[in-house]
Amino acid sequence: MAIEGAQTTPAGRIRIGMVGGGEGAFIGAVHRIAMRLDDQYELVAGALSSTPEKAMRSGAALGLDPARTYDSFEDMAKREARRKDGIEAVAIVTPNHMHVAPALAFLKAGIHVICDKPLSISFKEGLKLKAAVAKSGKIFALTHNYTGYPLVRQAREMVAAGELGEIRLVQVEYPQDWLSQDIENTGQKQAEWRTDPARSGAGGAIGDIGTHAYNLADFITQIPVVQLSAELTSFVPGRRLDDNCQIMLRYANGARGMLWVSQVAPGHENGLKIRVYGTKGSIEWVQANPNYLIWSQLGQPQMILTRGGPQTGAAAARVTRVPGGHPEGYLEGFANIYTEVAHAIRAARTGAAPDPAVLFPSLDDGLKGMAFIEAAVASSRKNARWVAL
Amino acid sequence: MAIEGAQTTPAGRIRIGMVGGGEGAFIGAVHRIAMRLDDQYELVAGALSSTPEKAMRSGAALGLDPARTYDSFEDMAKREARRKDGIEAVAIVTPNHMHVAPALAFLKAGIHVICDKPLSISFKEGLKLKAAVAKSGKIFALTHNYTGYPLVRQAREMVAAGELGEIRLVQVEYPQDWLSQDIENTGQKQAEWRTDPARSGAGGAIGDIGTHAYNLADFITQIPVVQLSAELTSFVPGRRLDDNCQIMLRYANGARGMLWVSQVAPGHENGLKIRVYGTKGSIEWVQANPNYLIWSQLGQPQMILTRGGPQTGAAAARVTRVPGGHPEGYLEGFANIYTEVAHAIRAARTGAAPDPAVLFPSLDDGLKGMAFIEAAVASSRKNARWVAL
Amino acid sequence: MAIEGAQTTPAGRIRIGMVGGGEGAFIGAVHRIAMRLDDQYELVAGALSSTPEKAMRSGAALGLDPARTYDSFEDMAKREARRKDGIEAVAIVTPNHMHVAPALAFLKAGIHVICDKPLSISFKEGLKLKAAVAKSGKIFALTHNYTGYPLVRQAREMVAAGELGEIRLVQVEYPQDWLSQDIENTGQKQAEWRTDPARSGAGGAIGDIGTHAYNLADFITQIPVVQLSAELTSFVPGRRLDDNCQIMLRYANGARGMLWVSQVAPGHENGLKIRVYGTKGSIEWVQANPNYLIWSQLGQPQMILTRGGPQTGAAAARVTRVPGGHPEGYLEGFANIYTEVAHAIRAARTGAAPDPAVLFPSLDDGLKGMAFIEAAVASSRKNARWVAL
Amino acid sequence: MAIEGAQTTPAGRIRIGMVGGGEGAFIGAVHRIAMRLDDQYELVAGALSSTPEKAMRSGAALGLDPARTYDSFEDMAKREARRKDGIEAVAIVTPNHMHVAPALAFLKAGIHVICDKPLSISFKEGLKLKAAVAKSGKIFALTHNYTGYPLVRQAREMVAAGELGEIRLVQVEYPQDWLSQDIENTGQKQAEWRTDPARSGAGGAIGDIGTHAYNLADFITQIPVVQLSAELTSFVPGRRLDDNCQIMLRYANGARGMLWVSQVAPGHENGLKIRVYGTKGSIEWVQANPNYLIWSQLGQPQMILTRGGPQTGAAAARVTRVPGGHPEGYLEGFANIYTEVAHAIRAARTGAAPDPAVLFPSLDDGLKGMAFIEAAVASSRKNARWVAL
Repeated sequence: MAIEGAQTTPAGRIRIGMVGGGEGAFIGAVHRIAMRLDDQYELVAGALSSTPEKAMRSGAALGLDPARTYDSFEDMAKREARRKDGIEAVAIVTPNHMHVAPALAFLKAGIHVICDKPLSISFKEGLKLKAAVAKSGKIFALTHNYTGYPLVRQAREMVAAGELGEIRLVQVEYPQDWLSQDIENTGQKQAEWRTDPARSGAGGAIGDIGTHAYNLADFITQIPVVQLSAELTSFVPGRRLDDNCQIMLRYANGARGMLWVSQVAPGHENGLKIRVYGTKGSIEWVQANPNYLIWSQLGQPQMILTRGGPQTGAAAARVTRVPGGHPEGYLEGFANIYTEVAHAIRAARTGAAPDPAVLFPSLDDGLKGMAFIEAAVASSRKNARWVAL
Repeated sequence: MAIEGAQTTPAGRIRIGMVGGGEGAFIGAVHRIAMRLDDQYELVAGALSSTPEKAMRSGAALGLDPARTYDSFEDMAKREARRKDGIEAVAIVTPNHMHVAPALAFLKAGIHVICDKPLSISFKEGLKLKAAVAKSGKIFALTHNYTGYPLVRQAREMVAAGELGEIRLVQVEYPQDWLSQDIENTGQKQAEWRTDPARSGAGGAIGDIGTHAYNLADFITQIPVVQLSAELTSFVPGRRLDDNCQIMLRYANGARGMLWVSQVAPGHENGLKIRVYGTKGSIEWVQANPNYLIWSQLGQPQMILTRGGPQTGAAAARVTRVPGGHPEGYLEGFANIYTEVAHAIRAARTGAAPDPAVLFPSLDDGLKGMAFIEAAVASSRKNARWVAL
Repeated sequence: MAIEGAQTTPAGRIRIGMVGGGEGAFIGAVHRIAMRLDDQYELVAGALSSTPEKAMRSGAALGLDPARTYDSFEDMAKREARRKDGIEAVAIVTPNHMHVAPALAFLKAGIHVICDKPLSISFKEGLKLKAAVAKSGKIFALTHNYTGYPLVRQAREMVAAGELGEIRLVQVEYPQDWLSQDIENTGQKQAEWRTDPARSGAGGAIGDIGTHAYNLADFITQIPVVQLSAELTSFVPGRRLDDNCQIMLRYANGARGMLWVSQVAPGHENGLKIRVYGTKGSIEWVQANPNYLIWSQLGQPQMILTRGGPQTGAAAARVTRVPGGHPEGYLEGFANIYTEVAHAIRAARTGAAPDPAVLFPSLDDGLKGMAFIEAAVASSRKNARWVAL
Repeated sequence: MAIEGAQTTPAGRIRIGMVGGGEGAFIGAVHRIAMRLDDQYELVAGALSSTPEKAMRSGAALGLDPARTYDSFEDMAKREARRKDGIEAVAIVTPNHMHVAPALAFLKAGIHVICDKPLSISFKEGLKLKAAVAKSGKIFALTHNYTGYPLVRQAREMVAAGELGEIRLVQVEYPQDWLSQDIENTGQKQAEWRTDPARSGAGGAIGDIGTHAYNLADFITQIPVVQLSAELTSFVPGRRLDDNCQIMLRYANGARGMLWVSQVAPGHENGLKIRVYGTKGSIEWVQANPNYLIWSQLGQPQMILTRGGPQTGAAAARVTRVPGGHPEGYLEGFANIYTEVAHAIRAARTGAAPDPAVLFPSLDDGLKGMAFIEAAVASSRKNARWVAL
């Protein structure tokens, strides 16, 4: 296990700032725990809110130096870039429509970017980052955190090694129930922006969680989806974005897939689950109980692989902190993304070649996600006609 | 519980015959156990095989009177109809293409018919039975056995009572793995006829198990599917019928559904599972562990209903034999269909009005299944275009 | 699988009678289903109740010939013995205190006996049967039905084959909750006799379900318990027999065990569960979901063996009717005992040597159970001192 | 949820040091993550190893100031006490025999102590701390980390609120398999000291994990055990301490309990599990899947409470970071202990009355654990005679 070594013994923490994530934000706090868990980062600056007083109050609560608590990300990018002890990286945790502008600003300022998902509110908008990232030479990471789970990496490694044979089927689902009623009209902030096209883009559930489901399948199988047929529905009266999406997938190798995401499925808190079937076997992983991976080999009894347990490989081991039976969870998975980025940043410091074992979602993954959202919306508008991806 | 009463104390067993189900057949033996379990039937005649020696050998092994062991169903129908102690009902357990002809013969002879599913090899062929059943005044039952499980009936009762609110979503799947390889070319009889269009009709997995999945959703929700979009695939090289089907469903009330069946999904023995979601709650039931029904009410912890346990209703109770914690299974569910039909036959004997609590799949269910198969095949051939049902 | 063959195709059913099991009895109906399931027996006579009218009414409801519906077991034994078509076997399903007398009567009459458990109300009383069985040359079977489950037999076979290495630990438990309150004072018949020392003997839960737990461990491990330390408690005020038992076991080979049975454990319907640990691996089996056996090999991921699935052996296969994924349950397990006895009776008819693969609990198992009850009661009375078995 | 507020926004981190936990140590790294997770502590000093070079190397790896990397805890206690910016608290993560001496030293130096469990190698040795703690006025916390899990606190709250009625039964177990073979003779350091009486005291498994199991039951029920009967066994040839313990418990209120811990139970990684039964209901919690609590109310279906989900109360909510469905695990539970202690330290800084909602294991819990170990060892040596606690 990797509990000793890079993850716990930083030779100089990476100075990081945050855009968004002030008072009342959920995901900002998660990002802060994730950056702290392996002691790889030190949060030293923030533009935590676009409301100045709230920004100051939030910075103070986090123990930030008032001089480095900014009113705007533009200001932060400029001034941090000038400091000798300025931030090396920034975490962008604003709603979707506020990802690209700060990302461009920090990249321009020569600062690595870690950005929440989905990438942007449109593929076109996201594409602006392509040239900017290339030009900057900086790291751009997207927090598709579910790829940080050790057994998700195990699954990817097994597929790549051919343990499942040729892949035939993908079944991925991500049901939730928290939007089963119109809570966006009751003042619930999280629900408000997620159901608002202006802040979320053309996709509701498809953008918020559909991208996670799609990314997870992509990460594990590494096989491109070439066509999809999508039926997006808004079940809750008055809701302007989809709250349920059912999608059929055609893969480049002839495999077929089904993807279901919902935010109106009572009984599901956060039900991300994936199953991948090949000619020789299958795997099944459930996010809510992430320390187990069911491996079925054709003609053999099912086996339960455990995080840290027998027959798990190097990919899982390097993002595992504690032995099997001591459950790791959502925050550890999220932290793995941050720690992987930290490895890349350290390599970038010295100009060393990046370690091929280091894995985190990139701008390309973000663009794939945007293309997926737009294809799904387009398909759904055309009565679920097949749309190329 | 219903352990005492009609199920265990027959006042005169119903005399029954069987067509098909001789040596080497799987489902014939299942039907025989199902008819025997509640002591409602006595098997007294059979046309167990179309090969005369095999028919005699099979009859002898079952202890049938040689005089009532027939070479052909035509012969059996005619001669049993003439006997004073002739059969009152017949079970037809031949491959799909051999259902309609014997059914017509026995109906014509005034004998009730219990027929294995799917109904026929085409909707058109199945339709021939419509007039025949009406004319005969006899009972026609189709053994969609999964509707016999107590907690499936509980689920239906809950949906009907509005416990889930307005239904929004149906997720039903039925994966298996036994056809992951081309075992039809190795002499496996069960695989041979199920992958042969001449004996199975236009559908492979869609007919064999897709009809079960569709019927189960229909039984529980009682909401018609109005359109479907289907992608049927034959993954195993050389296979002539589909071995994987992914289908999107549109329901009459605006609900949406996804249906997946597969016979090439390693790790699944017989993975029938259904989830139904409404505005107020959801239910989940898994055939392989059928004594539990997960009930989620929006905003409440999930509850695990058990067969025979608290908060289960009358519909489940009347097909329950033993108390909660004493698992019932596949054969008991199958027997419930037979016992329900027995109730109907006894009522028919006296001309009594049928008990509205008695439930078993009918010819109409069989026709719906055929329409479903044909719509799915048609949709798939048109690149998964929506097809009306 | 054994679905075809002896289990379904009887060459002449065995004529059987029943003592007890009239109106309102639970276990009588279970025995009748069990004898019927594989078509090995025909119930033709009964002394179903000691109340003459009730006996006649119960016999009529079961379709018995009134001439073979008896008021007393003595009468039945004598008269059936004289008939040419008299019963070959009898099932005794009365409360515990009424097992030995009828068993003696039928053995004396040359009739095989299948007796419900526990054997008797005392070891001493049970011992009377020892000579009687030997003298009669007849079969005496005890319905410790849980040994009929296919995967219980699989577990036994694995232990015997050394798959687990040397056995070190046994953990067996059988919690229920139905006696959490004093329902014996509310007219509940099942509760009444089970909490009455006159009808149940010195043990309450220890006799009713403790014997099952002990027998299950004994069946699987085949290692004798040499000493036990027991703490029996009556939690419900006014209850005269134990409703909770915790016992520590010492095995002949140095293994250690813990056994817990309870009838006052809310949340458990019928929670029989066993785990056996050896130097090389362990198995776990849970009665409420009996089609799975978890096999852990030291240093390997856990495997889930399924009834009818890969890597299960001959012992399970011969008592399996339907393929994996089609769950069998309590009644099938119970029927396996009856069918095993039928094999033995058929062998006895011809004087053939008994098939060593045929397995059912015997008088010796019944005596072991009585010794276990008495040792537990004795230990508990002496402040849980170790008592030899 | 408590994700915002004290846990994530420290007004000045608490300066902390560490004794033990250098290179190769497992639990030291866990403690460091736990102190970091909620940003309540800053590790600034250490006596990480008794080998000077290893101590320096370990300190450097953790980014400690070399001037605050000590060779001995005595030195550290003295010199840190003199610094203006000296540590306020120390974490002691050495093997059991090295807990008391440093604890005394730091208490004497006026520094709060957070100590790994078990407290000491004997009750008598642990008792030395009693007066020292009282005299110092400092906080002494013991890291019985499993009490930090939100749903363990939920269980305690439910028991205290009478939701289960009067408690009758406790079933607690903690099986592992990592010592199934004599790995202590193969150079495995963790196994070496845990099986060495000189470093672990008189108990092996009973001290290492038995104390966790006992403490967990004590934490949830808050009912004292008054007597126990224990059978301790060393199964692995040559092992000097117990590797399996089976214990019967008698509680002050008449409840009964069974406790099983093992390190030779193949298939169990870290199988801590507890069930508590009362007159009205029961709870079940399994550490390996800690985000669920099964609640059974007599006569009702079982309910699955989830961390962060409906019907969980204040006790769980205050140690919960992320919503239901986003699993928290071992490290979060461990961090909860550290964060609770941080609340207490902050209160102590100002002399404020401690918040009664703040909960962490204390010296008294440590002493109870030592008494439990000694009672179990004593009972076992006397053939499992009952011993008072």
